[in-house]
Amino acid sequence: MPKPLDDLVNLFSYLPGIGKKSAQRIVFGLIQNNKELASQLARSIQEAVDKIRPCKNCQNLTDKEICDLCSSAKRNKNQLCVVESPSDLSMIENSRIYDGQYFVLMGRLSPIDGIGPEELKLEVLQQRVANEPIEEVILATNATVEGDATAFLIREMLSDQKIKITRIAQGVPLGGELEMVDSGTIQHAFNGRQEFKTG
Amino acid sequence: MPKPLDDLVNLFSYLPGIGKKSAQRIVFGLIQNNKELASQLARSIQEAVDKIRPCKNCQNLTDKEICDLCSSAKRNKNQLCVVESPSDLSMIENSRIYDGQYFVLMGRLSPIDGIGPEELKLEVLQQRVANEPIEEVILATNATVEGDATAFLIREMLSDQKIKITRIAQGVPLGGELEMVDSGTIQHAFNGRQEFKTG
Repeated sequence: MPKPLDDLVNLFSYLPGIGKKSAQRIVFGLIQNNKELASQLARSIQEAVDKIRPCKNCQNLTDKEICDLCSSAKRNKNQLCVVESPSDLSMIENSRIYDGQYFVLMGRLSPIDGIGPEELKLEVLQQRVANEPIEEVILATNATVEGDATAFLIREMLSDQKIKITRIAQGVPLGGELEMVDSGTIQHAFNGRQEFKTG
Repeated sequence: MPKPLDDLVNLFSYLPGIGKKSAQRIVFGLIQNNKELASQLARSIQEAVDKIRPCKNCQNLTDKEICDLCSSAKRNKNQLCVVESPSDLSMIENSRIYDGQYFVLMGRLSPIDGIGPEELKLEVLQQRVANEPIEEVILATNATVEGDATAFLIREMLSDQKIKITRIAQGVPLGGELEMVDSGTIQHAFNGRQEFKTG
């Protein structure tokens, strides 16, 4: 295979869920039949790389200083939902069960990978809870060991604040990641949330 | 979702085998964690768009005037294999069963889509067979209605040339179980049966 195609197949096969064979199929399809789509894709990737950054308020990916969700007047200011990633946020938004604020950790507690409270910007979360009219923090981290540990840490961190702290529960399968779950399950998980009490 | 991300998710979901959800997962992964890979991918796509073109001899995708396979002195000059697409060629090369020349149709006969003999550049194939020392043309188009029709057309077109024309065998795939195979395949396997000689 000519080198530019070979390089491109290799790059595509680094993407999640794309093996060598799918990568080859994609690359041949693009370069053989659809160079216009290919160029558009190249431009669009670079544009996203250049323009997208974390929201200064919630850390969600945005092309503005403060993201649309944070600056919306229509959103409930009394609830704040903590998620691990922008795709988790996106899944929750798609389920339409929630209309409050968000905080995106951009990761989960994982001491082995050197990800602790500072990397997750938990002090920003703490300040927001202290300064904003938040009455409930909903911990919607994944139902994994790391997600649970992260939720536990945040609960401890916020335990001196006079707010309700809840954890989504019913519906999310054990070991499951939010972005793989359907909207109905997410709705169940939100409706079944329970108070996250200190042991 | 910010527009640059939304646009990018849409573009990725146009690619074969990538649905909306996988596209979202890929885009978030790239922009959230791996902007360097994203930029590299954008450059690599554009480089392939700019450099890759059809080989003047066999129509395979290449970054040269004449592709490496056509210009190789090591390849058998007496056999020419006709395939529908560069990925079919690539599959045959990976199998290491064949070391001759190729002709890539870049499609298959499909009157409904306006693809006839001219679009497949069959006159180029005809000239090659007339001018090169080719003794056998192997028709390796797909085992589909269109692939069969394409093979039939090429056989008719080359019938006045003093060469052997063969079609790759159709039958039960290696490791395939009869109960998993459709009746058309079983019919082909029966019609194409060969004497099972004792070693």
